[in-house]
Amino acid sequence: MIIKGMNFMDKELLKAYRLFLKDSIRKVVDFSLTDQNRGITPPPIEKPYSGEALRIDLPRRERLREIGRIDLAAAIGQRESRRTYVRKPLSLEELSFLLWATQGIKEKLDPGHALRTVPSAGCRHALETYLVILNVSGMEQGIYRYLPLEHQLIFEFTEENLERKIVRAALDQPYPGEAAVTFIWTAIPYRMEWRYGLAAHKVIAIEAGHVCQNLYLACEAIGAGTCAIGAYDQSGMDKLLRIDGEEEFTIYLASVGRKG
Amino acid sequence: MIIKGMNFMDKELLKAYRLFLKDSIRKVVDFSLTDQNRGITPPPIEKPYSGEALRIDLPRRERLREIGRIDLAAAIGQRESRRTYVRKPLSLEELSFLLWATQGIKEKLDPGHALRTVPSAGCRHALETYLVILNVSGMEQGIYRYLPLEHQLIFEFTEENLERKIVRAALDQPYPGEAAVTFIWTAIPYRMEWRYGLAAHKVIAIEAGHVCQNLYLACEAIGAGTCAIGAYDQSGMDKLLRIDGEEEFTIYLASVGRKG
Repeated sequence: MIIKGMNFMDKELLKAYRLFLKDSIRKVVDFSLTDQNRGITPPPIEKPYSGEALRIDLPRRERLREIGRIDLAAAIGQRESRRTYVRKPLSLEELSFLLWATQGIKEKLDPGHALRTVPSAGCRHALETYLVILNVSGMEQGIYRYLPLEHQLIFEFTEENLERKIVRAALDQPYPGEAAVTFIWTAIPYRMEWRYGLAAHKVIAIEAGHVCQNLYLACEAIGAGTCAIGAYDQSGMDKLLRIDGEEEFTIYLASVGRKG
Repeated sequence: MIIKGMNFMDKELLKAYRLFLKDSIRKVVDFSLTDQNRGITPPPIEKPYSGEALRIDLPRRERLREIGRIDLAAAIGQRESRRTYVRKPLSLEELSFLLWATQGIKEKLDPGHALRTVPSAGCRHALETYLVILNVSGMEQGIYRYLPLEHQLIFEFTEENLERKIVRAALDQPYPGEAAVTFIWTAIPYRMEWRYGLAAHKVIAIEAGHVCQNLYLACEAIGAGTCAIGAYDQSGMDKLLRIDGEEEFTIYLASVGRKG
């Protein structure tokens, strides 16, 4: 599939791609035509799930007072990308803390808005969090999804050779296969497009950065480490999660395991 | 400049923009043709400055032990976007802490690589930090730039009616005019393109998110608040900073002031 010889340092191509990072588009987007301004009902703030789905309660934040006790400056100072892990399990309490820190809901404002532990443009929060759980105490290996509104995990499914499949979808980077859990963030772009149209996509990428930075810091608080992964097989990862790759697709991931 | 009637919710246009958020491009980029793989010298990891420039030493991190004392979980839990500020100055020590938390260098590995307090794809760190200082003790109002390698500020220039100009460039959002300081992050995209070519731009946007999340948390540690700003006048902001808008351009900003 690699286009041999195509010049990916071509100035004109790069210029077109750089546009994506600018806010120039705001001057040409006619916001009166966004779905929001046309009165269309906003999409749900959390991906719906079947009533028959297996859901697992997570320890509530209030019950985790002893978890995450680290000085902010220490967490920032010692944070680094950690790619090797000791094969000890994470506890469900620790995992609950990481999920709260990255996407937890602090306050539900109305059916269409909830304040989370990270900011999002227009409070749209276009991400979902999937977990590839390999080594969490009491949890079956498999693929789960976080439900921020319920602070629960939903068991999506399991796969044979899950370790091998996540490594392959990460382009053979080994750490997701050695991690206790890998966070995979997907974007549901329409959540942001509903409000911002073509000005949505840059801020979705930024949002993934907000979330991942909190994961880095929260890991330091529980004696774990993480490594963000920006290079992955897009269609392979989407297939692994059984998402359509269009209305929802993988945007970023990070492996998490216990520090040695 | 607004194109009236153009459908910015058009499915095909949105599909094209969504591509930017995917890593599909990795399968078509011929990495053997990146400037890195062609043996071209990497760009400097910090924007060069004139030897005659006025530089201001910032209090070193080691001397700021009493700043930033907050529990990580408390900082995450109380973080919110704060848009109103008390008109009290920040101290230079507090500003130094915010700069360290967002872009500080922890370790210089070699002339081309330095580890910072935030992660960056391939350790490329494609951002620069400008400050619009309005109310920091002992500091003249004006536009400054952070030098991570030296942990210094460089005084760029000042402007008459700076408050009004930053508000206008922020599309008349008032908080940068009421803030003690506004952080403006620019991208120097070639730093990332040198290694990743057309796969560079998504990760630059993500990087801005990493940085801004640390600013949110670090502000909570000093009794300040911040509000990230994704909507701004691209050419207006670039002109205000006197940058060319092509090889370097504004990507994200955040106003910072003391909490009421």
